[in-house]
Amino acid sequence: MTMNRQFRLAARPVGLPKATDWQLTEETSAPLKDGEVRVRVLYLSLDPAMRGWMNEGKSYIRPVAIGEVMRAGGVGIVEASNSPHAAVGDYLAGIFGVQQYWTGPVDAKAAAAMKIDPTLAPLPAWLNVLGMPGMTAYFGLTDIGQPKAGETVVVSAAAGAVGMTVGQVAKQLGCRVVGIAGGPDKCRYVVEELGFDACIDYKAGPVAAGLKEHCPQGVDVYFDNVGGDILDAVLARINLKARIVICGAISQYNNTTPVRGPANYLALLVNRARMEGMVVFDYAARYPEAVQRLGAWLQAGSIKSREHVVDGFEHFPDALTMLFEGKNFGKLVLKVADAP
Amino acid sequence: MTMNRQFRLAARPVGLPKATDWQLTEETSAPLKDGEVRVRVLYLSLDPAMRGWMNEGKSYIRPVAIGEVMRAGGVGIVEASNSPHAAVGDYLAGIFGVQQYWTGPVDAKAAAAMKIDPTLAPLPAWLNVLGMPGMTAYFGLTDIGQPKAGETVVVSAAAGAVGMTVGQVAKQLGCRVVGIAGGPDKCRYVVEELGFDACIDYKAGPVAAGLKEHCPQGVDVYFDNVGGDILDAVLARINLKARIVICGAISQYNNTTPVRGPANYLALLVNRARMEGMVVFDYAARYPEAVQRLGAWLQAGSIKSREHVVDGFEHFPDALTMLFEGKNFGKLVLKVADAP
Repeated sequence: MTMNRQFRLAARPVGLPKATDWQLTEETSAPLKDGEVRVRVLYLSLDPAMRGWMNEGKSYIRPVAIGEVMRAGGVGIVEASNSPHAAVGDYLAGIFGVQQYWTGPVDAKAAAAMKIDPTLAPLPAWLNVLGMPGMTAYFGLTDIGQPKAGETVVVSAAAGAVGMTVGQVAKQLGCRVVGIAGGPDKCRYVVEELGFDACIDYKAGPVAAGLKEHCPQGVDVYFDNVGGDILDAVLARINLKARIVICGAISQYNNTTPVRGPANYLALLVNRARMEGMVVFDYAARYPEAVQRLGAWLQAGSIKSREHVVDGFEHFPDALTMLFEGKNFGKLVLKVADAP
Repeated sequence: MTMNRQFRLAARPVGLPKATDWQLTEETSAPLKDGEVRVRVLYLSLDPAMRGWMNEGKSYIRPVAIGEVMRAGGVGIVEASNSPHAAVGDYLAGIFGVQQYWTGPVDAKAAAAMKIDPTLAPLPAWLNVLGMPGMTAYFGLTDIGQPKAGETVVVSAAAGAVGMTVGQVAKQLGCRVVGIAGGPDKCRYVVEELGFDACIDYKAGPVAAGLKEHCPQGVDVYFDNVGGDILDAVLARINLKARIVICGAISQYNNTTPVRGPANYLALLVNRARMEGMVVFDYAARYPEAVQRLGAWLQAGSIKSREHVVDGFEHFPDALTMLFEGKNFGKLVLKVADAP
């Protein structure tokens, strides 16, 4: 009999999620059905998108219901198995939820949880470069942004999980890469450690001036994770036939006032440019392609994975809030248990 | 010696252009150089885009300078020719400017002025379905919007020059077509005369309710001529993989306050949809293809061309203002002289 603790959504947040929006519950895990496994969750991924899942209303994925275990991706180890497709001791990644144990099916198609190879990269990297953020970065950049060698790629939230991989992949593809991030530490990191050509500190001055300085040839691809003023500043510098990837809008997620649209959107008209949304789940069938390519770059040392690990399941609510306050540095990951 | 009258830009307008923003001048036409022709202008095209050309600053085309003859498309007849590529009596279309006579080169590539066939359609139609608005509608819809038979296409300013052709072409391509226009007369016209499936009167009530009623399957292609609230209302109803063609934003052109961006732009993310700008001049090499296809539809009676003709060169300033007040009904054309 396994005791399992969970964070469930207690109330729909107004603005930034607060402690009372969560309920910490404890229950006994149900016995395994045919085809099911029990996974001990080791790491959970904390992502800006989680804020959207807490809202009511139509979106690209159904909202988390009140009383439901909060949705989250994670990696873990199989402790018990009734499935021919996973053995005890296998490592799995899946949407395990904010809980200590996940019980669910593992089938041949790996629909709910897929096996991962912990020798290719450390476990937290499977929630980062080799996980959803990496998939988002890879397909958003290559499939929607379509950068060509020599073009200028700008990415916001550059030190965040998605942004750092966007920029590193763009460098691998031969682009000039300019990040936008908050604070000198993050900016120094993406330039000195990750090899970006430049990084604009949006807290230090107007982004427009930074773009003018660091994108002398204009902007061909903008990978937008933030929306708001920064999106407008980039729109003012785009080139003919520029591609803007709308991946997120973290500046707007906790708004209690209406979202502010990009006032400079007519730059799309003047420049015959494109703004297009992307949702990573659409690329599920192609994840192995990205894992292979990103994994090879990782092993060759051409790109890096950096995680910000918060230790302790019970710190979930505070850790999530760090995301929206820009306090994490690297992909934010919650450590739930030690790997055996 | 030919006396030529011209409207020149006297001042950059703030908001709606007013009488004092223009200067009416008169001068003798210069003698013809080698390769040049003199065209007597018969009709001039009045277009929302002209408002943009009056502003200073970088755009898809250089601004009209203070003191320069206002830029405008027109059709006319050759009265004198020093070019082997045009004979006296030929009809030409070109960017002739707001003046009674145009003097300029006609070369083999028809770069500045191209010959038109007045037996294919009446002269004003060469400024409408077979002119810039028709080219804009045809390439914006087919190349950027890419509608498939059975999809729902929404077009704003539906009774305007571009909108009426967008909707009629979309019907020819097998789409459900819903217009948005101001007032019952325009709405009745696009449905009863042009064959749109429905038209929403934005002056009669919320556009959102009309879209809900008339687009039960959502919106696959939106051809936007207006921006503002209407763009936001359509964004709230788009389907997965929808295409939004940004062709213009007449609601914003005379703003003295900043342009309001589309607050619902994150619908692009949720729906993996695309918003893309288009400028008709990019398709210049393909105009003959569109003239042929639209001309055939016109002659077969499958599509219609409707012009609103204001008679008299001297009425140019007031006629232009009609555009921004929604007072024209059909493509607005200024008649400068009778065809011989």
